Amino acid sequence: MTQLEFANKNIATPLMKKIAVKEGVSAEYVLKCVKNGTIVIPLNNTHKITRPCGIGLGLTTKINANLGTSTDKSETNIELKKLQIACKYGADTVMDLSVGGNLQKIRREIIKHSPVPVGTVPVYEIAVAAQNKKHDFLNFNIADILSTLEAQAKEGVDFFTIHAGVTKRSTQALVQSKRVLGIVSRGGAILAAWMHCHQKENPFYQHFDRILDIAHKYDVTLSLGDGLRPGSVLDATDEAQISELKILGELALRSRKRAVQVMIEGPGHVPLQQIEKNIALEKKICRQAPFYVLGPLVTDVAPGYDHITSAIGGALAASFGADFLCYVTPSEHLRHPSVEDVRQGVIASRIAAHAGDIAKGVKSALNWDKAISQARKKRDWKKQIKLSIDPDKAKEYRVSSKPHLSDVCTMCGKYCSIRVMEECSRV
Amino acid sequence: MTQLEFANKNIATPLMKKIAVKEGVSAEYVLKCVKNGTIVIPLNNTHKITRPCGIGLGLTTKINANLGTSTDKSETNIELKKLQIACKYGADTVMDLSVGGNLQKIRREIIKHSPVPVGTVPVYEIAVAAQNKKHDFLNFNIADILSTLEAQAKEGVDFFTIHAGVTKRSTQALVQSKRVLGIVSRGGAILAAWMHCHQKENPFYQHFDRILDIAHKYDVTLSLGDGLRPGSVLDATDEAQISELKILGELALRSRKRAVQVMIEGPGHVPLQQIEKNIALEKKICRQAPFYVLGPLVTDVAPGYDHITSAIGGALAASFGADFLCYVTPSEHLRHPSVEDVRQGVIASRIAAHAGDIAKGVKSALNWDKAISQARKKRDWKKQIKLSIDPDKAKEYRVSSKPHLSDVCTMCGKYCSIRVMEECSRV
Repeated sequence: MTQLEFANKNIATPLMKKIAVKEGVSAEYVLKCVKNGTIVIPLNNTHKITRPCGIGLGLTTKINANLGTSTDKSETNIELKKLQIACKYGADTVMDLSVGGNLQKIRREIIKHSPVPVGTVPVYEIAVAAQNKKHDFLNFNIADILSTLEAQAKEGVDFFTIHAGVTKRSTQALVQSKRVLGIVSRGGAILAAWMHCHQKENPFYQHFDRILDIAHKYDVTLSLGDGLRPGSVLDATDEAQISELKILGELALRSRKRAVQVMIEGPGHVPLQQIEKNIALEKKICRQAPFYVLGPLVTDVAPGYDHITSAIGGALAASFGADFLCYVTPSEHLRHPSVEDVRQGVIASRIAAHAGDIAKGVKSALNWDKAISQARKKRDWKKQIKLSIDPDKAKEYRVSSKPHLSDVCTMCGKYCSIRVMEECSRV
Repeated sequence: MTQLEFANKNIATPLMKKIAVKEGVSAEYVLKCVKNGTIVIPLNNTHKITRPCGIGLGLTTKINANLGTSTDKSETNIELKKLQIACKYGADTVMDLSVGGNLQKIRREIIKHSPVPVGTVPVYEIAVAAQNKKHDFLNFNIADILSTLEAQAKEGVDFFTIHAGVTKRSTQALVQSKRVLGIVSRGGAILAAWMHCHQKENPFYQHFDRILDIAHKYDVTLSLGDGLRPGSVLDATDEAQISELKILGELALRSRKRAVQVMIEGPGHVPLQQIEKNIALEKKICRQAPFYVLGPLVTDVAPGYDHITSAIGGALAASFGADFLCYVTPSEHLRHPSVEDVRQGVIASRIAAHAGDIAKGVKSALNWDKAISQARKKRDWKKQIKLSIDPDKAKEYRVSSKPHLSDVCTMCGKYCSIRVMEECSRV
């Protein structure tokens, strides 16, 4: 039985109870939300991990780190190092987005070593296999899709991104749109190109029930991909994007009916003032399904700093109710990320999620800020460093610049405001 | 005559005209806004610079970079290097916040070399002089204050931070508050300690008219400092902060009456959901005076990454109408910033300002995003790099990771969504 089936029978599973303890909420609450689809717990029923998580309403905002090889960079060891770093710095889930090298080997290694849920975009392996076997990455059919999904689910993948919203209907809206950038989703592009080449409906949409069968069997959570997400702030919230979102809303209901857990992927590049509306639309159209946003990036002009453009958008999105943030690294739009890029991306995303949690009113969130502020008042540097989101970096900075007075830092030295006030109160 | 006096006489000065051209608005608009106090043009009437700027309603959001020595770090050359880097990467103004070494020499060098307006916090020099001469940094009086202000204005300082809102009234509110962190403003702490030690009202408040005389003489813009700004998100928007803001509102009116340009400094550490309210309060209480926010930092837990926590807050603040963002570097709360920290701080702040400008609807803002997105669609890497907010970093990333196919990047390689769609449309 899937977690959703247990919830439908009003049975709180050990997994739900574990999530409840971790989040400081009741098991009844988790059960109720899994049942009504506002929380998902992405965990394949054949997969054992040490750090499962719940994603959705009333829980802390979660973050995902994308890993995986490209056709240009495909070293398994480096991807495993990224996995380690991402989990060390607080990623709640990872996705293996590999399209280069031995895909199955890399995925199995990531699944084997990951303490957190692992997601994939199965169409990548399907396309790469078609390319390798038939020299044409669009030469695949529904049988290839289903066999790949089954194989990946059997290996223990916890959530699948399924680009089933790129359909004749939504791509028609795209054609009529005047986008600066058309399709910027890799999976979305592969499927749109497949549809164009074969002159057929998207097989993930056409055969969605068969996909649900596999997801149901292994309790794989579906993450309905936004293949038509905007890739420029000028393209945000357009007819193509919304048209796809409506299809995802229909598919989300079908997933729930089949007792398959489901969440919705969202943009992308979105100007700041449209973020609230984007969250509200998703929540309404997809009946409060957890929203997994890819950024959003609030401007297109900062390659090299897209961990920052997306931290701005992510924090805002979380504050308005986004449940799950996909990190973006500084290398976005420029190169395959390095291990250090992954670290930067994870930290920026955690900052965004935490800032969003404070705004959402997540009970435990402010305790952290209070504790570090109290340490700051005492100029207790050891504690400040320990409580920092990245103790390694805080320590590195502190050690690099030693003050004459040991209780302050070299920014203000003797004129540290906290020290000045403390001395004053002693007079 | 000050710019405000010219405006009061309905005379558009060459400076106003220059600002109008730079911003793509009419000179009449700039004149009208300088007149009603919604725009300030910080430029000392004895100072010549190549990059003056207007700050306020309907203009692009400006950013300030803090420079200056501390008691622990006081090398003039390094501060000049920071000045150069800050201006190269887009700072609209700089502030010299030195409290270590030969303050006058450093300030003169910064004024001499800066292409942008230079601000100071005169109480720093006043306190440091008292410390040096009398071994007590609180041993100064109104004569010392006025002579320092006059001397700095004569040297060409364009705007002064004046902590005149730290008064008996507002500090009383502070005492009654249950702040996690009390006063975190260096100037605020010095004045609160001075008041406590001398048992007198804040001399900057008491003798505000005499300060206005000097500001008027040189057309120095006043930046009314928020000495009681919150230093933890738990302290935000409390009675002490608002009490001070009300005093700043009164002083802003008095400044305008004296034809002295004035803006208001704001927090600080503010949780995301309180930022809109903070902007609205300032705009209401201070009659639409330009708002100069210090961050705001949306969480306290990320020392080492406070350029990111403040980019989140700054973008949001700008979107709601903040006019001027003070950058925060990664070294905030940890050490005196390095040259690289300054660069990181400036870029993060520019990203925030630009994201805010898009949301504010500043006409020119989206053109930049459009141009880089068009280059991205064409996979024109030279143009993408040129149009990046930091072309040096974009180039470094691009060069570090060469793709097999020259038109893509190593992230997606052959499966670049834009390339896939382009090939598909050719079929």
